[in-house]
Amino acid sequence: MSKPQQRVLTGVTTTGIPHLGNYVGAIRPAIAASQKADTESFFFLADYHGIIKCHDPALIHESTRAVAATWLACGLDPARTTFYRQSDIPEILELNWILTCITAKGLMNRAHAYKAAVQDNLDKGQEDQDHQIEMGLYSYPILMTADILMFNAHKVPVGRDQIQHVEMARDIAQRFNHRFAKLFTLPEVQIDEEVETLVGLDGRKMSKSYGNTIPLFDSEKQLQKAVNKIVTNLKEPGEPKSPDESPLFEIYKAFATPAQTAEFTQMLAEGLAWGEAKKMLAANINTELAPKRERYQALMANPGEIEAILQTGAAKARAQARLLLDQVRDAVGIRVLK
Amino acid sequence: MSKPQQRVLTGVTTTGIPHLGNYVGAIRPAIAASQKADTESFFFLADYHGIIKCHDPALIHESTRAVAATWLACGLDPARTTFYRQSDIPEILELNWILTCITAKGLMNRAHAYKAAVQDNLDKGQEDQDHQIEMGLYSYPILMTADILMFNAHKVPVGRDQIQHVEMARDIAQRFNHRFAKLFTLPEVQIDEEVETLVGLDGRKMSKSYGNTIPLFDSEKQLQKAVNKIVTNLKEPGEPKSPDESPLFEIYKAFATPAQTAEFTQMLAEGLAWGEAKKMLAANINTELAPKRERYQALMANPGEIEAILQTGAAKARAQARLLLDQVRDAVGIRVLK
Repeated sequence: MSKPQQRVLTGVTTTGIPHLGNYVGAIRPAIAASQKADTESFFFLADYHGIIKCHDPALIHESTRAVAATWLACGLDPARTTFYRQSDIPEILELNWILTCITAKGLMNRAHAYKAAVQDNLDKGQEDQDHQIEMGLYSYPILMTADILMFNAHKVPVGRDQIQHVEMARDIAQRFNHRFAKLFTLPEVQIDEEVETLVGLDGRKMSKSYGNTIPLFDSEKQLQKAVNKIVTNLKEPGEPKSPDESPLFEIYKAFATPAQTAEFTQMLAEGLAWGEAKKMLAANINTELAPKRERYQALMANPGEIEAILQTGAAKARAQARLLLDQVRDAVGIRVLK
Repeated sequence: MSKPQQRVLTGVTTTGIPHLGNYVGAIRPAIAASQKADTESFFFLADYHGIIKCHDPALIHESTRAVAATWLACGLDPARTTFYRQSDIPEILELNWILTCITAKGLMNRAHAYKAAVQDNLDKGQEDQDHQIEMGLYSYPILMTADILMFNAHKVPVGRDQIQHVEMARDIAQRFNHRFAKLFTLPEVQIDEEVETLVGLDGRKMSKSYGNTIPLFDSEKQLQKAVNKIVTNLKEPGEPKSPDESPLFEIYKAFATPAQTAEFTQMLAEGLAWGEAKKMLAANINTELAPKRERYQALMANPGEIEAILQTGAAKARAQARLLLDQVRDAVGIRVLK
């Protein structure tokens, strides 16, 4: 007997331009997972989450374009998956309100992101613990719940900091099922222990906030330029080097087969110059990225093509969302008069 | 020069069946106001507010039907006004989220309804001040803001307990206009000092929660039966009576011309029996209500007719809402890729 289809849902906030760390840590594994036979994947551009913290309309817009182009260029298949922009699915915002009406305020009080913001105020000696906190930050776990429940996803792959939100989604789903009608699947967190976290130029986690990123789809020349900035030590060519002396090795590993990695370790031990090692690394990364970069640049030059793909995805997503929302509306008493 | 058109917006929560107090205090004056030449009226069935506190789907549904039928039977002209059901306008729920992202949490902390619920918990010795408080109660001033701003209403006629919400809507509109683009009209409260509050059977304000109501559109026989329950004293027929001896007089006044009221006062002073007075009152109410009752019963027997009227209203409302929502989305960066 074949395994039942697992619905896996992934959202990407549209507040930045993807870098190499996003590629290795999120995009590449998610796309690989979406190609499994027993998986039905939902990917969405979470622009209504984006506007919670980002008040720069141009960045929201540009990031939406770049994130969509990146995922498509990296092999996301819009025919096999359901790929849509959150703001194209008004049913999600309607469900968001219905769920708001059954969510305990105490649950939101316990959300990590809100608690961290309160702690920050207290640390600064603010009398008002809610100083400068906006309702978007406070209530976005409900919107995230609507994102998940709208498509009755079974699995939500998230980082450790997001586990609580999926638990909240379960909690809210259970409350609805108990109070009105058993309409929602209880979603489960999917933590992939093997997912790689790429290190950045300085050896810390690659992150925009650390300013230690390598761009994903800039030109080959700019890729080499960024790789050249990876921190190394003062060892001369010819001196033996070990993998733990530079983040370069960890990044190399993310783009190499185990055999290549073993060979690279050997070459370092035999005195490979850092400059040569950087050329090898950039070449390896480029081998993987070059065809994707070409597709990315073509898409970025033709945003209408991205829009058309997103509209097709939205139609597919809305057809499903509508069916469930109609049941949800009926369950709470919002019905056609007849 | 003619006065500019004033947009007036009124919402009615769908959690009960209108009674005579609603008719005198809200429905009759609002419909009269909508007939003024300088007024453009928006009326809506606030079913997405209804589900905040009412978890009885059958009541939400039945109330939606009865409230719509009541307003239409009482003369609301769907051709002259924009008459719609909130849940038919998904643009409102989308705007609700966008406004959520710019609303200070501190503003919601100060909302009367939430503060009253917290006080209630404290009074009961609850350690958790948010005990059993749901997010719908906490954040509904934002939904009410979306209701108002979605149609750029100038005036919102409200009771004194709702003034704060319209002020919050102004506050949120100002914040959006300042942060993104000047898209929203700042709404104003409209308090009509002359609006009557009808007393109930026992002389307190007529209210479902006091159980002292007179039904609006039950049969003539049931109307007389309810009127007979109005509290009077033990004075015999022939004994002089004064208007302040029974709420009957106040109710009579709400359905009579000043000349009729003066005559009625005179008759009481001359010893009119309470039983006779009640017959006169019921007859007066019935004269005003009979044609409306007939229309109400016809509509209630044909909910499809109500639905068709609401759908026409929704199309009219959505055409306007869409234009504004598109501008709002553009202002925050939610844009078509092209």
